[in-house]
Amino acid sequence: DFLRALEEVHPLFGVSEEDLERAVEGGIIHFSPHIDKILENGRDFVNQVKTGTTPLLSVLLHGPHGSGKTALAAQIAMNSEFPFIRLVRPVDMVGMNEIQKIQHLSKIFTDAYKSPLNVLVLDNIELLVDWVPVGPRFSSAVLAALKGLMDNKPPKGRPLLVMATTSERTVLQQLQLYFKMQIPIPNVSTQQELAHIMQESGAFAGADIERAISDIEQTTGGRSIGVGIQQVQLCIQTAMQVQDRPGRFAEVMSEAIADNAAGA
Amino acid sequence: DFLRALEEVHPLFGVSEEDLERAVEGGIIHFSPHIDKILENGRDFVNQVKTGTTPLLSVLLHGPHGSGKTALAAQIAMNSEFPFIRLVRPVDMVGMNEIQKIQHLSKIFTDAYKSPLNVLVLDNIELLVDWVPVGPRFSSAVLAALKGLMDNKPPKGRPLLVMATTSERTVLQQLQLYFKMQIPIPNVSTQQELAHIMQESGAFAGADIERAISDIEQTTGGRSIGVGIQQVQLCIQTAMQVQDRPGRFAEVMSEAIADNAAGA
Amino acid sequence: DFLRALEEVHPLFGVSEEDLERAVEGGIIHFSPHIDKILENGRDFVNQVKTGTTPLLSVLLHGPHGSGKTALAAQIAMNSEFPFIRLVRPVDMVGMNEIQKIQHLSKIFTDAYKSPLNVLVLDNIELLVDWVPVGPRFSSAVLAALKGLMDNKPPKGRPLLVMATTSERTVLQQLQLYFKMQIPIPNVSTQQELAHIMQESGAFAGADIERAISDIEQTTGGRSIGVGIQQVQLCIQTAMQVQDRPGRFAEVMSEAIADNAAGA
Amino acid sequence: DFLRALEEVHPLFGVSEEDLERAVEGGIIHFSPHIDKILENGRDFVNQVKTGTTPLLSVLLHGPHGSGKTALAAQIAMNSEFPFIRLVRPVDMVGMNEIQKIQHLSKIFTDAYKSPLNVLVLDNIELLVDWVPVGPRFSSAVLAALKGLMDNKPPKGRPLLVMATTSERTVLQQLQLYFKMQIPIPNVSTQQELAHIMQESGAFAGADIERAISDIEQTTGGRSIGVGIQQVQLCIQTAMQVQDRPGRFAEVMSEAIADNAAGA
Amino acid sequence: DFLRALEEVHPLFGVSEEDLERAVEGGIIHFSPHIDKILENGRDFVNQVKTGTTPLLSVLLHGPHGSGKTALAAQIAMNSEFPFIRLVRPVDMVGMNEIQKIQHLSKIFTDAYKSPLNVLVLDNIELLVDWVPVGPRFSSAVLAALKGLMDNKPPKGRPLLVMATTSERTVLQQLQLYFKMQIPIPNVSTQQELAHIMQESGAFAGADIERAISDIEQTTGGRSIGVGIQQVQLCIQTAMQVQDRPGRFAEVMSEAIADNAAGA
Amino acid sequence: DFLRALEEVHPLFGVSEEDLERAVEGGIIHFSPHIDKILENGRDFVNQVKTGTTPLLSVLLHGPHGSGKTALAAQIAMNSEFPFIRLVRPVDMVGMNEIQKIQHLSKIFTDAYKSPLNVLVLDNIELLVDWVPVGPRFSSAVLAALKGLMDNKPPKGRPLLVMATTSERTVLQQLQLYFKMQIPIPNVSTQQELAHIMQESGAFAGADIERAISDIEQTTGGRSIGVGIQQVQLCIQTAMQVQDRPGRFAEVMSEAIADNAAGA
Ligand SMILES: Nc1ncnc2c1ncn2[C@@H]1O[C@H](COP(=O)(O)OP(=O)(O)OP(=O)(O)O)[C@@H](O)[C@H]1O
Ligand SMILES: Nc1ncnc2c1ncn2[C@@H]1O[C@H](COP(=O)(O)OP(=O)(O)OP(=O)(O)O)[C@@H](O)[C@H]1O
Ligand SMILES: Nc1ncnc2c1ncn2[C@@H]1O[C@H](COP(=O)(O)OP(=O)(O)OP(=O)(O)O)[C@@H](O)[C@H]1O
Ligand SMILES: Nc1ncnc2c1ncn2[C@@H]1O[C@H](COP(=O)(O)OP(=O)(O)OP(=O)(O)O)[C@@H](O)[C@H]1O
Ligand SMILES: Nc1ncnc2c1ncn2[C@@H]1O[C@H](COP(=O)(O)OP(=O)(O)OP(=O)(O)O)[C@@H](O)[C@H]1O
Ligand SMILES: Nc1ncnc2c1ncn2[C@@H]1O[C@H](COP(=O)(O)OP(=O)(O)OP(=O)(O)O)[C@@H](O)[C@H]1O
Ligand SMILES: [Mg+2]
Ligand SMILES: [Mg+2]
Ligand SMILES: [Mg+2]
Ligand SMILES: [Mg+2]
Ligand SMILES: [Mg+2]
Ligand SMILES: [Mg+2]
Repeated sequence: DFLRALEEVHPLFGVSEEDLERAVEGGIIHFSPHIDKILENGRDFVNQVKTGTTPLLSVLLHGPHGSGKTALAAQIAMNSEFPFIRLVRPVDMVGMNEIQKIQHLSKIFTDAYKSPLNVLVLDNIELLVDWVPVGPRFSSAVLAALKGLMDNKPPKGRPLLVMATTSERTVLQQLQLYFKMQIPIPNVSTQQELAHIMQESGAFAGADIERAISDIEQTTGGRSIGVGIQQVQLCIQTAMQVQDRPGRFAEVMSEAIADNAAGA
Repeated sequence: DFLRALEEVHPLFGVSEEDLERAVEGGIIHFSPHIDKILENGRDFVNQVKTGTTPLLSVLLHGPHGSGKTALAAQIAMNSEFPFIRLVRPVDMVGMNEIQKIQHLSKIFTDAYKSPLNVLVLDNIELLVDWVPVGPRFSSAVLAALKGLMDNKPPKGRPLLVMATTSERTVLQQLQLYFKMQIPIPNVSTQQELAHIMQESGAFAGADIERAISDIEQTTGGRSIGVGIQQVQLCIQTAMQVQDRPGRFAEVMSEAIADNAAGA
Repeated sequence: DFLRALEEVHPLFGVSEEDLERAVEGGIIHFSPHIDKILENGRDFVNQVKTGTTPLLSVLLHGPHGSGKTALAAQIAMNSEFPFIRLVRPVDMVGMNEIQKIQHLSKIFTDAYKSPLNVLVLDNIELLVDWVPVGPRFSSAVLAALKGLMDNKPPKGRPLLVMATTSERTVLQQLQLYFKMQIPIPNVSTQQELAHIMQESGAFAGADIERAISDIEQTTGGRSIGVGIQQVQLCIQTAMQVQDRPGRFAEVMSEAIADNAAGA
Repeated sequence: DFLRALEEVHPLFGVSEEDLERAVEGGIIHFSPHIDKILENGRDFVNQVKTGTTPLLSVLLHGPHGSGKTALAAQIAMNSEFPFIRLVRPVDMVGMNEIQKIQHLSKIFTDAYKSPLNVLVLDNIELLVDWVPVGPRFSSAVLAALKGLMDNKPPKGRPLLVMATTSERTVLQQLQLYFKMQIPIPNVSTQQELAHIMQESGAFAGADIERAISDIEQTTGGRSIGVGIQQVQLCIQTAMQVQDRPGRFAEVMSEAIADNAAGA
Repeated sequence: DFLRALEEVHPLFGVSEEDLERAVEGGIIHFSPHIDKILENGRDFVNQVKTGTTPLLSVLLHGPHGSGKTALAAQIAMNSEFPFIRLVRPVDMVGMNEIQKIQHLSKIFTDAYKSPLNVLVLDNIELLVDWVPVGPRFSSAVLAALKGLMDNKPPKGRPLLVMATTSERTVLQQLQLYFKMQIPIPNVSTQQELAHIMQESGAFAGADIERAISDIEQTTGGRSIGVGIQQVQLCIQTAMQVQDRPGRFAEVMSEAIADNAAGA
Repeated sequence: DFLRALEEVHPLFGVSEEDLERAVEGGIIHFSPHIDKILENGRDFVNQVKTGTTPLLSVLLHGPHGSGKTALAAQIAMNSEFPFIRLVRPVDMVGMNEIQKIQHLSKIFTDAYKSPLNVLVLDNIELLVDWVPVGPRFSSAVLAALKGLMDNKPPKGRPLLVMATTSERTVLQQLQLYFKMQIPIPNVSTQQELAHIMQESGAFAGADIERAISDIEQTTGGRSIGVGIQQVQLCIQTAMQVQDRPGRFAEVMSEAIADNAAGA
């Protein structure tokens, strides 16, 4: 009964090989020098594993919702050119019970250890342990399994790089889920960065960019920007539906800035 | 046993095709320019999906109880003339367990993806995850499934517009159930708006409207109105049972204003 | 096993046709003009349903413990002379599990919809959802079902009046169980009202009434009365066991006043 | 398995006919006029039921731990000379699950209704609903059943007096378990009362009583006494083991006074 | 499955006849007049039961962790020379579920009632009801059973002395687990007491004792001692491993004093 | 089903004989005199058991995350040259239910008691009882079993040394899981200690060490160091991937110092 249920549920959530490529479908815009530094650190961590200096290295990419964590982790993983790369998403475990989730996760590690060089991307790792802020709730059993999998030394000659992403770094600390290294991912936060992204989109003329940015400055009373790259790109798409693109962009972008400020 | 129980329960709650039409049975009264703006934004979001600019767009209509969220979402959906439109209501899942609810929701998305253009209206989405303010309680598993369904990119060429309604926006933020765009739905809040609605009802003479509104102003001590369109229409229906319509309308309307103020 | 258990439990709690009549066995004493106004509003709500103006009208009678909510709801229901009248009491569902309660409630609505005109009295509705103030606790599933049943429009031509009673109005607001209309039921609160009730009971001579009331005033230090009609009638019955009726009445009535004040 | 378990458990806890007699084995010492008044009120409540004035009367005897609630309720019950008298104790339901407890309680009421005149003593009623102060915890289902049983009118001609005892009156109010009448049971609280009880025990000479009481006054710094009759009788028994009875009595009695004060 | 599990678990925890003897293996050092008084009170309580004055007497020995509660209770029990003596330890019920624990406890009482004179020692009684301070958690069902067993009068001619030990007296009060009599067990708290114990151990020369105590006074800044006899004896054992016994004893004893002070 | 699941899960987490050796694979650097003192105390505790002075001695090694608790416990165990040495890790019980965990732990003690001299290392003992700080949560049943196993005296001639490690000492106190002796394990906390470790690594020239330490002092504003030996060694490994080793080491080390300070 439950299994039949899962079968019907899972085709929708099935693991497809293109997951990794899709995660960077929106491209990586180098809107700030931080982006280059992140990719460079990523390369170094890949080497630290490849050379066997550290047989199991766990790295946490943490930053606000929509700041590009998944895209950057996927990019670092693809740059490694390791033979085994796997993106692990909460959606892949929808409808599983605790035991099934533990099996699923441990199988992913077992599979990895069949290959000589491995990268796992544990996306939104707080959701992998079923964490919900209200309560809070989470699965102690899955958490314990994940701690075990990340503490256990790999078999000889099977080094592993684990990259996890989260927008809930303090939660991970509270759950005592530790990582050896940490990379912060920033929001888009200056007018220059915003202009850079609008430029790259090809949807605005130079004067439009200036006008939109000055509109936003006025509407938000010069409040600092602080919006994820994901939301900025969506605002551009919304603006493209109307004639007055800079006007509509300024409108929805200002709402996003206000919302983020209210949520913060 | 449980299944037999469900069979007996469900005819009552069964999904009927007329649900969408019924949601706007009371009509859409354009009592304020906000109403027109809401419908216009709705049209733009429909286009953003139709043109494929954004393959999965999620929009949240949020506002007080009875402010007209469901009616407006249904209206925008019907205006889209998309081949697949579906209203998803908490009542459709009464008596189901968590697994059955996850199946039910995932089947709705799967069904949608068979059609080239789709709209889903997730009505009172906080109730879809079984949220109750006392506790608070909710279903983590259904929440996780819903997050997964709304995060997952649709298959190529199957763009989807998801509109959700809620009177509990901050709850959704706490549950970290994110939407790409937001539309606020206001209460009836000025005497002019109230007069407009009384006028449209055809139940009052012009002098009666003035008298009722002045009565209300006195009883409530000039307190700002703040009542949903739904409750206003019900007060008119109650007033229609008696001879002194403006008097009775002022009475029940004043109680509604006081109650809303007390609850706020 | 469980079913056998229920069979043994239920004869005791079985639904008898005389329930409605029994609820008003103590009569309705018109001790204050509020009582007349309540019955009149009741009549108007009955008409609003009967004429089809509002196909499903939900009305909440709320007031302190023992203030006469059930008796007045039953009286309004009987005055309607609708062909289908049903009193739904928490005691009818003792020993049922959540699913059985949902079935029981939904069957009551289904049965109602077979008749052209219907009244349901949901007595102590907070107990129908198993609410207990300590915790607090309640049944989310039954609550959701009840919300669904009360939100769902009736079939064409099957209008329904739902009257619910509660001494926990703020709880219903916290549970977001909404009603379209509200009727407050007051306690006995003045000496005149108390005298009126003593008079009607036929158990006291005029001078006795005066003496008892003056005793009560002294004992309670002139504190305002605030006791339900139910408790007042019980105090009369207790007084009838002894020779000094006014003295004993003053004694137990003063205790009741003090208790209510302490509980408030 | 569970049933076998119960069978082994229950012989120990079985309901014996002598329960009622045993509850007053220690006698009723009339150490204060309150005691006489309590028994008199009890007689009146018995009459109110016997005459049919009130078909179901519920009375709560409340007071501190060991103040004599059970003994006095049993005494009132035996004085009634009703054909059906039953003492219901928490210990009778040890090891039962919720459903079994509901069955057990409802059977007791059903059995009662076979007799023309009935008294039930629900001893430590807060424990009957499995209430524990830490948490707090209790059984909502048993509570609901008990409310139902005590709210339901008895069959015609089967009047019932329910007496409950509790040392947790405010808990019952929080659980909204209401009683129609209340009788407070006091602790032993004056030196005269204490002397009266020592006298009745026959274990002390007159001078010993004076000495012991003066010792207690000194040790406790004249603190007010406030100890249940049960503990006082136990202190006498302890004193009887040694030669210096007044000295040992003063010692353990003073400890009891200090403990009660600390706990209060 | 569960049973097989228990079988494997239990040999380890099995009840051995020597339990009682082992509890006093470390001897009873009369390091303070309190110890003599405790044993004397114990003898009196034994007599109160033996003579039938009080058929069921419950006595609580309460004091800090390691203060000697179990040893003293065992000593009093052995001094009684009653035919049935039984030590009940939490460890005996490891791996049992609630029902099994209730059966286990009730069997112990049933067994006791086969003998004419009985002593039960309920060791660490708060653990017998599975109490854990974090939460707090405990087993309501086992607690209810224990209350029942200790409230129920024994069969005629089967008097019973129940001695319980606890380091959590206030918890028992919160759980409303009452005892008829109480005996406080003190920590080692003066330099004289400490010297007495060192002396008895035979491990130190007189000058060493003085030196150690003066060392301790210096290290702890003259803080009052407050350490259980159990820990004192362990410190002596640790000191015996090294050459500089008084030095090492002072070191570990000082740590113990500091720890106890921090925990208090 | 569950068993099959476990079988698939466990090969990954299986107990290997080399566990103990692996725990000290990174070596023991004597960066401070504390380290020597810890090992010496360890030797004394081993003797206290070996000589039979204390048949069951429990010792807690407590200190911050990554301070070297497991490595030092393993080293002391190996130094003992006892015939039975066993490292018990939380990861060994991933996927087991409470009963299975109790069986697992009790089997470990049973196995130990077959050997004449035994050491158990209970690694991260707070995780063995499934403790999670959020909630907090833990397994009462496993906790009770562990208390039982550590309280129970071993069979004659089977002395046992139990060493446990934890970074949550106050949690153990709250859970009332007591140890007879305690050893604190410190973080690396001075520049000299840091220099010592860099030196031993062989990865830095003398001037590089000075430069890195002075860099760190500047970046952290002279904040005290407070980082575990584990993290220090990882920072060295990271630095080894780049040309500017002292620069990169100062960078990641400074981040670690800041993180630890923020977490503290
Ligand atoms: N510099 C950049 N860094 C990251 N993403 C970028 C960048 N430039 C463009 N993008 C695009 O922005 C989007 C970032 O979304 P992504 O899902 O990676 O964010 P996220 O932080 O993982 O969000 P969430 O918090 O929802 O997991 C992607 O579509 C990506 O292709
Ligand atoms: N301008 C308007 N906007 C929305 N609804 C309107 C408007 N004018 C009239 N109506 C009518 O008012 C009612 C609004 O009720 P609706 O159920 O949509 O409110 P809601 O906000 O969804 O309530 P709830 O909080 O209970 O979900 C409908 O009957 C609708 O036909
Ligand atoms: N004016 C009146 N209004 C209501 N009840 C009255 C009135 N006069 C007399 N009564 C009698 O008083 C009693 C009121 O009790 P009822 O059970 O209706 O109170 P309630 O508010 O429903 O109590 P509860 O809070 O326990 O549900 C009934 O016996 C009824 O016959
Ligand atoms: N005046 C009295 N009132 C009540 N009990 C008395 C009186 N005089 C003597 N006793 C004796 O005192 C004892 C009272 O104990 P009882 O169990 O009735 O107290 P209780 O209040 O029910 O205690 P608990 O709180 O434990 O239920 C009985 O043994 C009874 O015989
Ligand atoms: N005067 C004394 N009183 C009690 N115990 C003593 C005394 N002198 C020596 N001992 C020894 O001290 C030890 C006391 O330990 P015991 O287990 O009785 O303490 P406890 O208070 O029960 O500890 P816990 O709180 O762990 O249950 C025993 O080994 C006992 O033989
Ligand atoms: N003096 C030392 N003491 C302890 N460990 C050392 C020392 N010198 C080097 N090491 C190495 O440092 C590492 C310490 O890690 P270890 O796992 O023992 O720390 P831990 O405190 O147990 O961490 P956790 O809190 O994660 O359990 C080991 O690799 C060990 O070989
Ligand atoms: Mg992401
Ligand atoms: Mg709606
Ligand atoms: Mg009622
Ligand atoms: Mg009692
Ligand atoms: Mg003990
Ligand atoms: Mg460790």
